[in-house]
Amino acid sequence: MDASFLARFQAVRSRTVKLCAPLTVEDQLVQPMPDASPAKWHLAHTTWFFETVVLGAPDPEFNFLFNSYYEALGPRVERARRGMLSRPSLERVHAYRADVDLRIAEAIGRVDPELLELGLQHEQQHQELILTDAKYVLGTQPLRPAYRDDLRRAPVTARAGWKSFAGGVVEIGAAATGFAFDNERPRHRVVVEPFELATRALANRDVQEFIAAGGYREAKWWLSDGWAAVASERWEAPLYWRGDEHYTLGGVRAIDPDETACHLSYYEADAIARWRGARLPTEAEWEHASGGLAPDAGNYADDDRLCPGDGAMFGDVWEWTRSSYGPYPGFRELPGPAAEYNGKFMSGQQVLRGGSCLTPRGHVRASYRNFFPPSARWQMTGVRLARDGGSR
Amino acid sequence: MDASFLARFQAVRSRTVKLCAPLTVEDQLVQPMPDASPAKWHLAHTTWFFETVVLGAPDPEFNFLFNSYYEALGPRVERARRGMLSRPSLERVHAYRADVDLRIAEAIGRVDPELLELGLQHEQQHQELILTDAKYVLGTQPLRPAYRDDLRRAPVTARAGWKSFAGGVVEIGAAATGFAFDNERPRHRVVVEPFELATRALANRDVQEFIAAGGYREAKWWLSDGWAAVASERWEAPLYWRGDEHYTLGGVRAIDPDETACHLSYYEADAIARWRGARLPTEAEWEHASGGLAPDAGNYADDDRLCPGDGAMFGDVWEWTRSSYGPYPGFRELPGPAAEYNGKFMSGQQVLRGGSCLTPRGHVRASYRNFFPPSARWQMTGVRLARDGGSR
Amino acid sequence: MDASFLARFQAVRSRTVKLCAPLTVEDQLVQPMPDASPAKWHLAHTTWFFETVVLGAPDPEFNFLFNSYYEALGPRVERARRGMLSRPSLERVHAYRADVDLRIAEAIGRVDPELLELGLQHEQQHQELILTDAKYVLGTQPLRPAYRDDLRRAPVTARAGWKSFAGGVVEIGAAATGFAFDNERPRHRVVVEPFELATRALANRDVQEFIAAGGYREAKWWLSDGWAAVASERWEAPLYWRGDEHYTLGGVRAIDPDETACHLSYYEADAIARWRGARLPTEAEWEHASGGLAPDAGNYADDDRLCPGDGAMFGDVWEWTRSSYGPYPGFRELPGPAAEYNGKFMSGQQVLRGGSCLTPRGHVRASYRNFFPPSARWQMTGVRLARDGGSR
Amino acid sequence: MDASFLARFQAVRSRTVKLCAPLTVEDQLVQPMPDASPAKWHLAHTTWFFETVVLGAPDPEFNFLFNSYYEALGPRVERARRGMLSRPSLERVHAYRADVDLRIAEAIGRVDPELLELGLQHEQQHQELILTDAKYVLGTQPLRPAYRDDLRRAPVTARAGWKSFAGGVVEIGAAATGFAFDNERPRHRVVVEPFELATRALANRDVQEFIAAGGYREAKWWLSDGWAAVASERWEAPLYWRGDEHYTLGGVRAIDPDETACHLSYYEADAIARWRGARLPTEAEWEHASGGLAPDAGNYADDDRLCPGDGAMFGDVWEWTRSSYGPYPGFRELPGPAAEYNGKFMSGQQVLRGGSCLTPRGHVRASYRNFFPPSARWQMTGVRLARDGGSR
Repeated sequence: MDASFLARFQAVRSRTVKLCAPLTVEDQLVQPMPDASPAKWHLAHTTWFFETVVLGAPDPEFNFLFNSYYEALGPRVERARRGMLSRPSLERVHAYRADVDLRIAEAIGRVDPELLELGLQHEQQHQELILTDAKYVLGTQPLRPAYRDDLRRAPVTARAGWKSFAGGVVEIGAAATGFAFDNERPRHRVVVEPFELATRALANRDVQEFIAAGGYREAKWWLSDGWAAVASERWEAPLYWRGDEHYTLGGVRAIDPDETACHLSYYEADAIARWRGARLPTEAEWEHASGGLAPDAGNYADDDRLCPGDGAMFGDVWEWTRSSYGPYPGFRELPGPAAEYNGKFMSGQQVLRGGSCLTPRGHVRASYRNFFPPSARWQMTGVRLARDGGSR
Repeated sequence: MDASFLARFQAVRSRTVKLCAPLTVEDQLVQPMPDASPAKWHLAHTTWFFETVVLGAPDPEFNFLFNSYYEALGPRVERARRGMLSRPSLERVHAYRADVDLRIAEAIGRVDPELLELGLQHEQQHQELILTDAKYVLGTQPLRPAYRDDLRRAPVTARAGWKSFAGGVVEIGAAATGFAFDNERPRHRVVVEPFELATRALANRDVQEFIAAGGYREAKWWLSDGWAAVASERWEAPLYWRGDEHYTLGGVRAIDPDETACHLSYYEADAIARWRGARLPTEAEWEHASGGLAPDAGNYADDDRLCPGDGAMFGDVWEWTRSSYGPYPGFRELPGPAAEYNGKFMSGQQVLRGGSCLTPRGHVRASYRNFFPPSARWQMTGVRLARDGGSR
Repeated sequence: MDASFLARFQAVRSRTVKLCAPLTVEDQLVQPMPDASPAKWHLAHTTWFFETVVLGAPDPEFNFLFNSYYEALGPRVERARRGMLSRPSLERVHAYRADVDLRIAEAIGRVDPELLELGLQHEQQHQELILTDAKYVLGTQPLRPAYRDDLRRAPVTARAGWKSFAGGVVEIGAAATGFAFDNERPRHRVVVEPFELATRALANRDVQEFIAAGGYREAKWWLSDGWAAVASERWEAPLYWRGDEHYTLGGVRAIDPDETACHLSYYEADAIARWRGARLPTEAEWEHASGGLAPDAGNYADDDRLCPGDGAMFGDVWEWTRSSYGPYPGFRELPGPAAEYNGKFMSGQQVLRGGSCLTPRGHVRASYRNFFPPSARWQMTGVRLARDGGSR
Repeated sequence: MDASFLARFQAVRSRTVKLCAPLTVEDQLVQPMPDASPAKWHLAHTTWFFETVVLGAPDPEFNFLFNSYYEALGPRVERARRGMLSRPSLERVHAYRADVDLRIAEAIGRVDPELLELGLQHEQQHQELILTDAKYVLGTQPLRPAYRDDLRRAPVTARAGWKSFAGGVVEIGAAATGFAFDNERPRHRVVVEPFELATRALANRDVQEFIAAGGYREAKWWLSDGWAAVASERWEAPLYWRGDEHYTLGGVRAIDPDETACHLSYYEADAIARWRGARLPTEAEWEHASGGLAPDAGNYADDDRLCPGDGAMFGDVWEWTRSSYGPYPGFRELPGPAAEYNGKFMSGQQVLRGGSCLTPRGHVRASYRNFFPPSARWQMTGVRLARDGGSR
């Protein structure tokens, strides 16, 4: 396994660096809000993960600087202060990466292969964050520069419709073998009532109609906490929208009504669904419905597009579900420091499914569970409608 | 139905007044934190509910003063400012109650009986809040006076153990007829895996052991948000505890190790369960396990005790479940203004089951779903342990 | 001295109680903002001052409850939580007053007469605060009830003009004998340049003109901190103004254009002065100019009016000066616990002069220095214009 | 005048760039607290000042990005978000500097020479801020790197003592001709009572003694607002101190007991003075006492030292005075946009005198008035004791 793993290791690691290439040294440092970590920090933190969690050989200084949230691994720089770290320099972080890459290459035969795999999956998660956080950095600059000027766009043609599912006792969750995160396991039975699921995620047109209908000004569509967020954050449209334009990684563009809508919080997703006389799917419905689809066939971040498309279930936008993020029956955390990877976040968040146009291809599974607080808007988060089926 | 309903109406309404009797005019006015509304406000708000929601005849002034959160019914006094309302006086609020009681008595034959019933159930919910909020008012006074000096205590003898349940596809939720809140419906099937449930809720002794073991100082037992709350709120014990004493409605008392523990947040409940090698039950497990029990047989607030006892499933403490509060499959909100009653709070909260020693007897059902944010501690909230069954 | 002092002591003490009489028990408890202490607290705190500072015999419980800010006298209830003290009851506080009054009467010959005098002056200061804080309590109720319905108003006729002063080296401050606060001493020389002072304080008409001219929307009239306050507090008019009406202790009234304007912060006072091409006086100018006037001849709170009048220098509104509150050359704090009375507030505040229509008659001197933060608006604070004299 | 002015212009402008040279691109971007603006921002803002205020030819984009606080010149980036501006790049800012320098050189004969002079003085003020803000950036990095490794230190030998001054009617303020800021004028008479002034500013040893005596834990030395700051900010020593070491621009060093103490807030300065049985001087006392001294003879930032020395009145540390920052009698703001330069900050701040070891030599006069809020600690701010003279 070593050789092929090493090739994959190097491919993933070098892709991370490549994703940062369009950013200036300065772009890679700032943190305009606590959730949007600097690219330099991502470069260092993913390396710290290999050094500390995988190799088990933490450097005391880097451990303090680049530990994210692992209480068992010691104190760390406060999350909201990551953008204050002018030192170590970006150059020094690249040297750190090179050094740890060498040490991993040497250690590959001796290190727990499951931890190595976890390190790669972790790196891929941060690749997506590098893009979403860079989008936030650039999109909130007064000058709103593009991340790349050479991104292409493809015509979007998918039409909306409904597909029916019969319901019953079904199985969801990852099988016992193969890589999956702890939170996807164990595979287990759930009851799903008959339901219908939209054939595409909502498009920008749908959000424009909600805005035009006064949806952001009418309490009755909103969860109580959502309505409070509308007031305190003065939401009038999705993040990055200004009138008919929005900021994209390719710069400011006219909003394409057919493109899948994103940068919607759970509150907005839920409100728009209710306004449409529908609802969000549960994660069980979503996973059940995704049955025959190929997770790797979507609109992922390995091409030159980096924007949503036609609302396919995989690789377009992360789709909010009405399921809160919690443990599956029989859930067990990973042993060792990785115990803090997923389990300790099981309160106050909603599950999202499917992967987005900024997710690396190959990273997502049907059982994959992403999670964000209901107020989060800086990810590529969108809406697929569901409704009760059967006797309706 | 009118006569018997009227008798019940008058019994419920007069009980509300009676619960306030041990409080001074001043005790009934203050609001030491946003969640703990003044008793005067509860007296007025429950009356407003009958006037506005049931009779549909709002008084403009009272509608602004005593609407709680019904967006469809107009603007209102900010929640955290309820304790600023020195006017109208308590006396005036009592006159308001008497007036609306008369109007209800006259209108009984003409008013939607389901709304009338909802008004009574709503009043009972606020009866419990009057007690918990008064406890907070008095318990956070520097002088810590008792609510009543004549409360009795009964010896507590229940022993802890486990009971096994086989699991399978079971039904939960309220049947289609009879009173239940919208959030308990529809009755539906869920899969429950084999599990075990503790025969009593955790006692104060269990919490004392957790404290003695350093549980409040060790991150590994805690959800991430819980650990943040421990730090920011400086939690070292349940609310109202000071060393070996705690504040009760009967005044400051020595902590009885056998009495059921309460005033625990979800975060604490979850941490203590994990420290014990167990977990919290799901709401489906809880409801399924409560099958043969009589909901009205517990330790409710109709006697002279008003403190927890031996950890029975009904009427001792509200028991946190690991289930987030969300809609059942096929959930429909009530029509009209009551639509805002339960549904709009379906984010960011956890379900609790069973009713507490401050709940009015007769108010709770097996399918009853209470809900609070995971950080809430001022309610009579406790912990019943569960663990996976079957092959263990 | 004892008999006459005792009579005065009893007169002052009973006036405090009388000022609270129009307020309900509930009005006397609430604290709608940290600055506006409850009347019950004032009743108790002034009593605590006699018991603890004058008699030197603190009751441990009351010392914790009713100490205001004396660090040397131990910990205390947090300022912003005074309105949470439903206990001790108002009745109990009245009993406390009676008890301490008796003890003072017995002790009068043995107690430091300067401390006794300080106790009375302190009580008079709180008499004024009882009125201003009650105004805030009632004026911010949704129902805006009057403090008293029987307050009379007198016609206001004074006309605006300027009076010139020659300047030179003048003396200000209190003489070495007779009662004065420590902060008024020592009397000392200052240079005053030729100046002119308005013959009356600004009237409501002047503020209405400033509003009509867009003064609250134009940065150029404002100090930097003032402009920030306008934005964050959304100031568009003085406190209590709504259109052409304002709340007064006599209830909601039409704004009388000739009545002296009040409830203006220092920032507003400064901005309006600048817009008028003038400035605020220094405290030395003010004191120098007040030379021939009788301090007790103003519009004080011993009649049935309780609202500003024609802008006389004494007893109408507290007049903001451009002087920051600091120590006079040679300033010495009082010995003992009274050391904390005035000196420790000598940062971040502005001096006000003259006394207001809510100040007890006989309390104010030409050298009297009041002080508030520049953002304060809940006191009877107004504006007298000054401008440079001489060669102009 | 043009040629010599141009030479001076170029000298000042190039010194600004030189001061940034030891900083990395990343060091020049971050803003760890709102007061500490990024070096890149200083480079751009000083250029904006020449372009917009001096040339009167604002570039719309740069005007929004680099206006500091001039309301009359339009909206701008929020102060606390200056460190978020990854764009324009540092390189672009240098090009902007070069471009404006050319335009100034061309315009020199046609531009108001007083505005040109103001632009240079303004630039010098920001030179000092570049150093203090860089110190904050580097000193709050977990790695605490030095600004320069080649800074030298000189032995400090000055001894403390007192010098007496007779008092009387003296003159302070800048004469009517020659460059001075508006806030230094007009020159005017003040009364100064006899006083004594310490012959050197307090040394680190004095602060160490205050700490050892428990000064940071005893309320009686502190102004009320100061004591609140001690509690909320958890002050136990001056900024940058950790035990026996402190951070300096030369890196972490042992604290030299003889070196002048700095990074003290006004609250600390006032408390230490009181603990020493002394007080802070007024600004009039300070200016009067500085009479015979040469302002340019101090320990300024034109050598390779950049740390305080022996406590001389000029060019060592900014010395807090007990005078609040306000207008002199007859004060007039500058005409045009420069009106906002000094006058609008005349509330809530204290005057400091003398210049510091980070001030450019030649920038300070005896009449120079610096001002900071009483809580500010990131400047080179220290303490010179005064006490009442004459009959003592």
